Amino acid sequence: MVQLNENYQKLPGSYLFAEIDRRVTAYRREHPDRELIRLGIGDVTRPLAPAVVSAMEQAAAEMGREETFRGYPPYRGYDFLLEAIAQHDYAARGVRLSPEEIFVSDGAKSDCGSIGDIFGPDNRVAVCDPVYPVYVDTNAMAGRAGEYDPGTERWSRLIYMPCTKENGFLPQLPRERADLIYLCFPNNPTGAAASREQLKPWVDYANANGSVILYDAAYEAFITEADVPHTIYEIEGARECAIEFRSFSKTAGFTGTRCAYTVIPKELVRGGVSLNEMWYRRQSTKFNGVSYVVQRGAAAVYTDEGRRQVRETINFYQNNARVILDGLARAGLEVSGGVNSPYIWAATPAGMGSWDFFDLLLTKANVVTTPGAGFGPSGEGYIRVTSFGGADATRQAVERIADLLKHGA
Amino acid sequence: MVQLNENYQKLPGSYLFAEIDRRVTAYRREHPDRELIRLGIGDVTRPLAPAVVSAMEQAAAEMGREETFRGYPPYRGYDFLLEAIAQHDYAARGVRLSPEEIFVSDGAKSDCGSIGDIFGPDNRVAVCDPVYPVYVDTNAMAGRAGEYDPGTERWSRLIYMPCTKENGFLPQLPRERADLIYLCFPNNPTGAAASREQLKPWVDYANANGSVILYDAAYEAFITEADVPHTIYEIEGARECAIEFRSFSKTAGFTGTRCAYTVIPKELVRGGVSLNEMWYRRQSTKFNGVSYVVQRGAAAVYTDEGRRQVRETINFYQNNARVILDGLARAGLEVSGGVNSPYIWAATPAGMGSWDFFDLLLTKANVVTTPGAGFGPSGEGYIRVTSFGGADATRQAVERIADLLKHGA
Repeated sequence: MVQLNENYQKLPGSYLFAEIDRRVTAYRREHPDRELIRLGIGDVTRPLAPAVVSAMEQAAAEMGREETFRGYPPYRGYDFLLEAIAQHDYAARGVRLSPEEIFVSDGAKSDCGSIGDIFGPDNRVAVCDPVYPVYVDTNAMAGRAGEYDPGTERWSRLIYMPCTKENGFLPQLPRERADLIYLCFPNNPTGAAASREQLKPWVDYANANGSVILYDAAYEAFITEADVPHTIYEIEGARECAIEFRSFSKTAGFTGTRCAYTVIPKELVRGGVSLNEMWYRRQSTKFNGVSYVVQRGAAAVYTDEGRRQVRETINFYQNNARVILDGLARAGLEVSGGVNSPYIWAATPAGMGSWDFFDLLLTKANVVTTPGAGFGPSGEGYIRVTSFGGADATRQAVERIADLLKHGA
Repeated sequence: MVQLNENYQKLPGSYLFAEIDRRVTAYRREHPDRELIRLGIGDVTRPLAPAVVSAMEQAAAEMGREETFRGYPPYRGYDFLLEAIAQHDYAARGVRLSPEEIFVSDGAKSDCGSIGDIFGPDNRVAVCDPVYPVYVDTNAMAGRAGEYDPGTERWSRLIYMPCTKENGFLPQLPRERADLIYLCFPNNPTGAAASREQLKPWVDYANANGSVILYDAAYEAFITEADVPHTIYEIEGARECAIEFRSFSKTAGFTGTRCAYTVIPKELVRGGVSLNEMWYRRQSTKFNGVSYVVQRGAAAVYTDEGRRQVRETINFYQNNARVILDGLARAGLEVSGGVNSPYIWAATPAGMGSWDFFDLLLTKANVVTTPGAGFGPSGEGYIRVTSFGGADATRQAVERIADLLKHGA
């Protein structure tokens, strides 16, 4: 009989957002009259920039004419997009990348998940705690996480790096030697950002140990502080040890349009083998590129008008972040994040569990958040609030939470 | 130090189409004046149907308005597309599927490659020879293929099922027990199609042995003969043992637009575990759905005008197939396929290797084909010719080949 991947049976419960969805759906069924405000899942709400829409319309029309029709896309992405990325996201920040170091894909989640394909099963993997669940679950599926202990909510072979109030939500270098290190800055879920100085020891660690840093920079467009790097390649030595994941999802509202990219520098070589070449082999064998229409839309993000329009949308969300940060602080909650990030990390009222606080906010304030415990044991005692809602809805949600806390949580 | 996936180092040479591309590019560089006709890679050339283009334009416009903007797509795909697939591709052929059994993706290649994620490493895998290289390479990457022997051009742990002139290019049931069986009908590269009667023993074999059939039906739109099933679920018992891969690439010209789907029936259970649920877990963890704009385009394929327009394009390619089939036969080549398939499988002139014949056609007739040997050792002595070119170009290519064979191959 066929043998299934037995690691799947070790995965606990359902994916975090599926569980939230279940609770929200159950509540709505019982209270169809209540108007919920959703500041839970990190999904955007503002429409695509006009420059992006018209580029996609034009590309669709091109696909309908024989002279301009396009078949299979290049595995790495179209040159027009690769060059725009290299110029605007890197050269403009003093980082030189060649188009052959960039791989356009359908999403940072796909790439963060599939990058494991090029690594062996015995690597020790280090993750932050709390953490974006995809890093953990995909390594568990690949057999790198060992066994799950429901008591501690930890996997036996993962190296956890707690991010707590005490360390300013920034991980410490692991004591055990880690081969693969997932870092996400600005962080999901805590909203914390590492400065250049704080990132440097990680690059040095990776180069000293032959480790590889998997650097998720999906939220870089939200950086406001000058000492926070927009790409890990601003750090000396990172080209020798880091893979960077970037996305148009949060930058340009592409969650439903699907486009992202992954950078693997040519200098990233282990045991004489180029990781860039391995990933090219992986992508050309198990992937067939991103839709021409979507790549044209992504390239329009880098035009003059596209950049202006996209910046307006990010400013819009950054205003929401300030409203949440200030409002929840005034309501007496301990908050962080939100400055270089669309995420606000709020401590629950004294002693309350994060799923309990989630349920309270859902049922009494009709606001959907994300319970911190869903991101790992060190997330217990926190909720994540996102700034991706409407301006009025965000203000109203903050008022509802403030009222609830004032009149009896 | 980080450990790489050592299976990648075992992969021989480069991906077939990359090698063809290398030879074609080298020839063009030396002879920039020659006009090449490309009947090699299976890429389409006709534009998207007007119904698809206007659906995509409209969807792009929707994404630009706040009221109609869409964020993250559902993991399985939008209901409007799932229901259209269930109705037109299945119910219309007497096969009942629920939308929860269908998973929309960015490509059949991605899914054929990634489906291995849900299976264990020790399964014995059976593939046809010749074969679409993706089945072999992705299993080699996952460590299921064993070691590669350059002498025999075979992997030690794969079970090869030769498809030769003697068996009408249809595989025989393997003698060793196979856990995972890749079947592709209508076949790439040979163009052979299995009738219902010929497919039934495979379903019975899989059910008797607890095996799983991975059924690639990407070319079903090209079926013309009544006894050839359009889906494996036309065969009794297939819901208990088969996963089917379908694509809009060849049906509706989506090679550059990227949309496909995979079917896993609820009855497909092994050791008490539902493969549908495992794949849902895989997709919700390592994938984030297909672009709204693209899914709207795919759904338009099923409208009345969409179906008429897409049928016209397929008729166009089917005419090409007849031109190639008749022309090459008249030129003295032994040909098969092309009746239920866009691919024509032609034997090389007596004693000639398939890469030699490829080079001859490239340099003397300026026609790009695909050498059969690139698909596996039993493909030696054949070339694959595709019907996806223009009508004039196809006719001209056939004439050039006929002239060449007449005046001195």
